Amino acid sequence: MSIDRIRHAGLRDKVMSAEQAAEFVQNGMNLAITGFTGAGYPKALPTAIANKAKAAHERGEQFSIGMVTGASTAPECDGVLAEANAVHFRSPFQSDPTLRNSINAGRTAYQDMHLSHVEQQMRQGFYGQFDIAIIEASGITEEGHIIPAMGIGHAVEAIKCAKHVIIEVNAAQNAGLEGMHDVYGEVGLPPHRKPIPLVGAFDRIGTPYIECAADKVIAIVLTNGGDRNSKFADPDDVSMRIAAQIIDFLDHEVKAGRLPKSLLPLQSGVGNVANAVMAGLLDAPFEDLTGYTEVLQDGMLDLILAGKMKHASATALSFSPDALQRFNDNIEFLRDKLILRPMEISNNPEIIRRLGIIGMNAMIEADIYGNVNSTHVMGTKMMNGIGGSGDFTRNGFFSFYVSPSTAKGGAISSIVPMVSHHDHTEHDVMFIVTEQGMADLRGKSPKQRAKLIIENCSHPDYRDMLRDYYDRALAVSEKAGGIHTPHILLEALSWHQRFVETGDMRIK
Amino acid sequence: MSIDRIRHAGLRDKVMSAEQAAEFVQNGMNLAITGFTGAGYPKALPTAIANKAKAAHERGEQFSIGMVTGASTAPECDGVLAEANAVHFRSPFQSDPTLRNSINAGRTAYQDMHLSHVEQQMRQGFYGQFDIAIIEASGITEEGHIIPAMGIGHAVEAIKCAKHVIIEVNAAQNAGLEGMHDVYGEVGLPPHRKPIPLVGAFDRIGTPYIECAADKVIAIVLTNGGDRNSKFADPDDVSMRIAAQIIDFLDHEVKAGRLPKSLLPLQSGVGNVANAVMAGLLDAPFEDLTGYTEVLQDGMLDLILAGKMKHASATALSFSPDALQRFNDNIEFLRDKLILRPMEISNNPEIIRRLGIIGMNAMIEADIYGNVNSTHVMGTKMMNGIGGSGDFTRNGFFSFYVSPSTAKGGAISSIVPMVSHHDHTEHDVMFIVTEQGMADLRGKSPKQRAKLIIENCSHPDYRDMLRDYYDRALAVSEKAGGIHTPHILLEALSWHQRFVETGDMRIK
Repeated sequence: MSIDRIRHAGLRDKVMSAEQAAEFVQNGMNLAITGFTGAGYPKALPTAIANKAKAAHERGEQFSIGMVTGASTAPECDGVLAEANAVHFRSPFQSDPTLRNSINAGRTAYQDMHLSHVEQQMRQGFYGQFDIAIIEASGITEEGHIIPAMGIGHAVEAIKCAKHVIIEVNAAQNAGLEGMHDVYGEVGLPPHRKPIPLVGAFDRIGTPYIECAADKVIAIVLTNGGDRNSKFADPDDVSMRIAAQIIDFLDHEVKAGRLPKSLLPLQSGVGNVANAVMAGLLDAPFEDLTGYTEVLQDGMLDLILAGKMKHASATALSFSPDALQRFNDNIEFLRDKLILRPMEISNNPEIIRRLGIIGMNAMIEADIYGNVNSTHVMGTKMMNGIGGSGDFTRNGFFSFYVSPSTAKGGAISSIVPMVSHHDHTEHDVMFIVTEQGMADLRGKSPKQRAKLIIENCSHPDYRDMLRDYYDRALAVSEKAGGIHTPHILLEALSWHQRFVETGDMRIK
Repeated sequence: MSIDRIRHAGLRDKVMSAEQAAEFVQNGMNLAITGFTGAGYPKALPTAIANKAKAAHERGEQFSIGMVTGASTAPECDGVLAEANAVHFRSPFQSDPTLRNSINAGRTAYQDMHLSHVEQQMRQGFYGQFDIAIIEASGITEEGHIIPAMGIGHAVEAIKCAKHVIIEVNAAQNAGLEGMHDVYGEVGLPPHRKPIPLVGAFDRIGTPYIECAADKVIAIVLTNGGDRNSKFADPDDVSMRIAAQIIDFLDHEVKAGRLPKSLLPLQSGVGNVANAVMAGLLDAPFEDLTGYTEVLQDGMLDLILAGKMKHASATALSFSPDALQRFNDNIEFLRDKLILRPMEISNNPEIIRRLGIIGMNAMIEADIYGNVNSTHVMGTKMMNGIGGSGDFTRNGFFSFYVSPSTAKGGAISSIVPMVSHHDHTEHDVMFIVTEQGMADLRGKSPKQRAKLIIENCSHPDYRDMLRDYYDRALAVSEKAGGIHTPHILLEALSWHQRFVETGDMRIK
């Protein structure tokens, strides 16, 4: 019974329906809603709010909210609210098709930001006052503390910053999650900050619950629904070739004595390719791997279950239905091998730099000088957002960016003259990897990088076009007075324009 | 006498002429040379190496070196070596006209990188073996330890990583510098890193000298020459208007209770505008200011001498001739108010995040969405480099980017449709400030930012052109399927192209 998950007697009196709880949400409110990559988001209240918005719109009244989450949620949260045209502001990350359309149509103002900045900017008051925090929990302790669900994200700060708190207690979440969280809420604000006392990826530095004053809680809604649990594609030939190159390189670094045999803590971005790299590590010559990541997916779970990875830290668990089954079946085994933390800790620059994270993230495209676009399609259209990729890229030990060398059946090259949006600059990106090969950009000038990226990473269908652009850019830039980074300014983004016009980056 | 600065008897035997010491430097060598923003660079050896290179070239032989410094040096270091065509690789920062020409002509491969990454990448072996470290010192202790000069930069790591060390002991440096340095060399590499134990901008966590094994030292050269000591322009009306806006904003934040009255530690970039902001603080309503910066210039020195700033931490002191005089005249007063640290500490992401630095940096241009170009002129030509601006922008509490709204007598707009090179992305930049006004970009979507930047920051001569671009970009991007970040791909960089062709961004 869901009600049994509420061990604090007084809070049981706050239980009500989602529709009743939605009555607290008014037009124009600023909400902090939990959720991180399809885990830990409220399952019932968003639909009730969306219905309220639709009813208001039918009456000719305005109704919309501002909404700051951990990261992406799911159709029954971002999706239903966007479908009801009820989100006027959204930050810091999303990946929902309906919300994406709302953003790209200009109906939702979206601030796409580094996840490591979210909680400190909430605390600093950058967003103004939050009216209500909506938190998914797997339970409530005797003391009224919140036991989070499959993700923590920004929940700690949401509760601290908001005037009121609404909790969804989800009985579908494994009760065995209790004890798996490590909630450190002492980051605070300058000038009173101290070092965060975490020196190993698996150190416990906090409590297994989130403190929450009972009188802040205005409603509790009982739910019983699964997380997003998207299925991953099975690793294909392209993904496996990308994975093999990263593993070969890491193996080379181990043999050269520049990395320990257990490597350094691994971060893996979201998606099929990133997941395939983790799958590739199952057979790699490393032992006692560790993970320090924001989202832990199937690949890392299987590394742990196989005994190849000792333990991992994340802020959310985002599994396919099959992997969720394996997680639930093995939760006792996993209890001392998984830690979930606030995203202010999972993505913290201090910790990422100290631990020396090996970051591996997917990209939309890279250019010949090593700039990476993680967010925009053809320069103007938002895909998902930067998420934590910048946190790990900017402060980690190694930064890998991976992508198949083409998309849309070859009509899009992932290697372009100039990226149509810059999320990670030439100063930050160390390795570009496609199924064609890898470019090690460390210690290289832009022109040296261009040669490597074109020759090693681009698809053969585009290689001559890239060589031609580069050669002509060199001549044009020489005339313009500087060839540090050769470009033809009016042609640099022409590949994207050609795709917009013809549906193909190739010249027909 | 210079020789008196060498208190270790054995090391006195290593004294030789710059020409003799230059004999150790061979073609193809990888050198780590100290120097940070015109301070702490060797004064004699580079000329001797340059002469050796010229002689080799005259004989038809190859002679060039790879060169990793702290940051910029001066004509008698970067300049003479570039003039002799003796630098095939250079990192991480420079600002010398002759070297800049060599980079832009393609004779020197330049890796322009975040200063906070330099020492860890040296230690990680990204650059391979360093053959010789060339270090400027103000003295050598009885134990053979090095007392740095006006800058530390990467000296600690240079000595650790290089096979051999050559020291220039410069008698022109104030002997009173001894004790002003705080050398923390315990950062190390993962997985063995610990928190850096610095919680206040003025904490001392290390030693006042750099340890150096005497048997690593192969030569000592005695010098007696000043640092670069460039003069700053007196603050003009434009600079003062920029400064006034930043000060007004900070005052507003203090009054709103979001900043203490002493603010948070200030970082100030290099140059006239940044220096003018510091000058503006002399009369601002703040007390007990603190500095945590990479280069400390005239402005911050005068704040300390005026009692407005309690103390400041930097990695180098870069003064005009007049300010150097004030520094030397007041060195006893300044002894407990200035600390010089390795740049791995001054620019460290962990520390910058913990202390909550207020970063203020100059830019070449910003675009209407808040991306900033710090490095390239018209997209292809290197100016100086990113330096530490990204370290403070990415991990600090506030990130201000400042520039006059136009350059070259109005022919260049500092606000453009799309920056021609991206050094700091829309995800990182919080405030754009010109003499026209300020744009607070926090918590805003790209389209909201565009309105603010165009209306508040652009010069009136360009405002209509920017409005026109934005309006048409909105229409074009809507047709292309997404208006999250409206752009006209083939026109986005046309302002720069127009300048290249006509010498003016304005349409005639």
